[in-house]
Amino acid sequence: MGALHAGHLSLVDASRAENSRTVVSIFVNPLQFGPQEDFERYPRDLEGDLAALAGHGVDAAFAPRREEVYPPGDATRVRVEGIGEILEGAFRPGHFEGVATVVSKLFWAVRPDRAYFGRKDAQQVAVIVRMAADLGTGIEVRACPIVREPDGLALSSRNRYLDAAHRTSALVLYRALRRANDAYLAGTRDPSALREALAAELVTESLVVPDYAEVVDPDDFTKPGRLAVLAVSVGDTRLIDNHLLGEPL
Amino acid sequence: MGALHAGHLSLVDASRAENSRTVVSIFVNPLQFGPQEDFERYPRDLEGDLAALAGHGVDAAFAPRREEVYPPGDATRVRVEGIGEILEGAFRPGHFEGVATVVSKLFWAVRPDRAYFGRKDAQQVAVIVRMAADLGTGIEVRACPIVREPDGLALSSRNRYLDAAHRTSALVLYRALRRANDAYLAGTRDPSALREALAAELVTESLVVPDYAEVVDPDDFTKPGRLAVLAVSVGDTRLIDNHLLGEPL
Repeated sequence: MGALHAGHLSLVDASRAENSRTVVSIFVNPLQFGPQEDFERYPRDLEGDLAALAGHGVDAAFAPRREEVYPPGDATRVRVEGIGEILEGAFRPGHFEGVATVVSKLFWAVRPDRAYFGRKDAQQVAVIVRMAADLGTGIEVRACPIVREPDGLALSSRNRYLDAAHRTSALVLYRALRRANDAYLAGTRDPSALREALAAELVTESLVVPDYAEVVDPDDFTKPGRLAVLAVSVGDTRLIDNHLLGEPL
Repeated sequence: MGALHAGHLSLVDASRAENSRTVVSIFVNPLQFGPQEDFERYPRDLEGDLAALAGHGVDAAFAPRREEVYPPGDATRVRVEGIGEILEGAFRPGHFEGVATVVSKLFWAVRPDRAYFGRKDAQQVAVIVRMAADLGTGIEVRACPIVREPDGLALSSRNRYLDAAHRTSALVLYRALRRANDAYLAGTRDPSALREALAAELVTESLVVPDYAEVVDPDDFTKPGRLAVLAVSVGDTRLIDNHLLGEPL
């Protein structure tokens, strides 16, 4: 969606290392925003983005106008049942339908061999992996590691919404994941105990309102597993983060 | 869906005339049948189909197993709002979602330049035209003329369900279209008068129960237009037919 940061650019570098040509799409997709969400104010910086992409050796950027993606009379929607309807999908109704629809269009536009997505949006990755397989696209979906600030905050275009106090409060996401990870590394496997470790840390920040804090299977997000997923509001800003428990953090 | 008749083979011939390679899919798609519909008994004749296709110079037939099209855990659905939800879509809930989903998969499997469909399923054509455009597939959708028996019955794999009495009754579809076409050619343009011409003929057959008889715009099926569309049950067999009023019939 543009407003590129080092997380996005790590996807570019990963693609460049594995493919002869790399194409980047930049499109703030209205269909994946709810009516009360931040579509209008979502950060946009096409000039800065194109400069950054040129610096990383991208072959082409695809920055379509809205009407190119949603032509007059557009009526086709792609949804992924199950994984697309829980957690983020439940808190943001229609969000993953918007994601699956636009990614389906981008896949047709580019017909790539591989497509790169960030693990920061872990559930989005799972939705797209499912869709790419179900539709028989033959596209290999690659998930790349979360890139964090030195203090642990996961990079997100939405971080620029945060004032100083909220920026400090937002670190509770990282602390919660650390706390659950420490418990996991110390031998805790009980899902409710791991969930409790997340929740116990989140309540330490009064400016933070949790949407959910779960420990789920990273592929289907319903069965218990070792992926800790968090969503919170920090003031008006909604942030998500996640970590595969047991991995370095 | 196989059980190929001369209507299907006319699509093959149309493709052969315009393209260097022609691929035919044969797949009775469970997703487009309702729970009370005829999926189990739908005619299947793979051997006969392959012989007919070889005779028409097809380069490849794609007859996937169910699991190839719907892999374990399959959860992705494609729908076309509006056009996919009215008339056939209203009488057969989920039908066009099943069609759009499977055609989307077939498009990815084959990535054709052009795709050929019969006008017998006029609303299906409109759904697929919309989907192909919305998703930016770049695939040109060609709609080919209805092929009829000498007595006017439109070819359909379901015609083989009809016993002699029902076969005779089914001709009322053709007579209704002729009656509306004659009215159109005589100058009638009022949609309700044209609809009335269809309905007045349908009631002449006691074995025939109409689902709908409308005169609509051939692209969006909501605005009035000059496409007469019919759906009826003849005994246990559901049949559809249509005609663009003013054209020879």
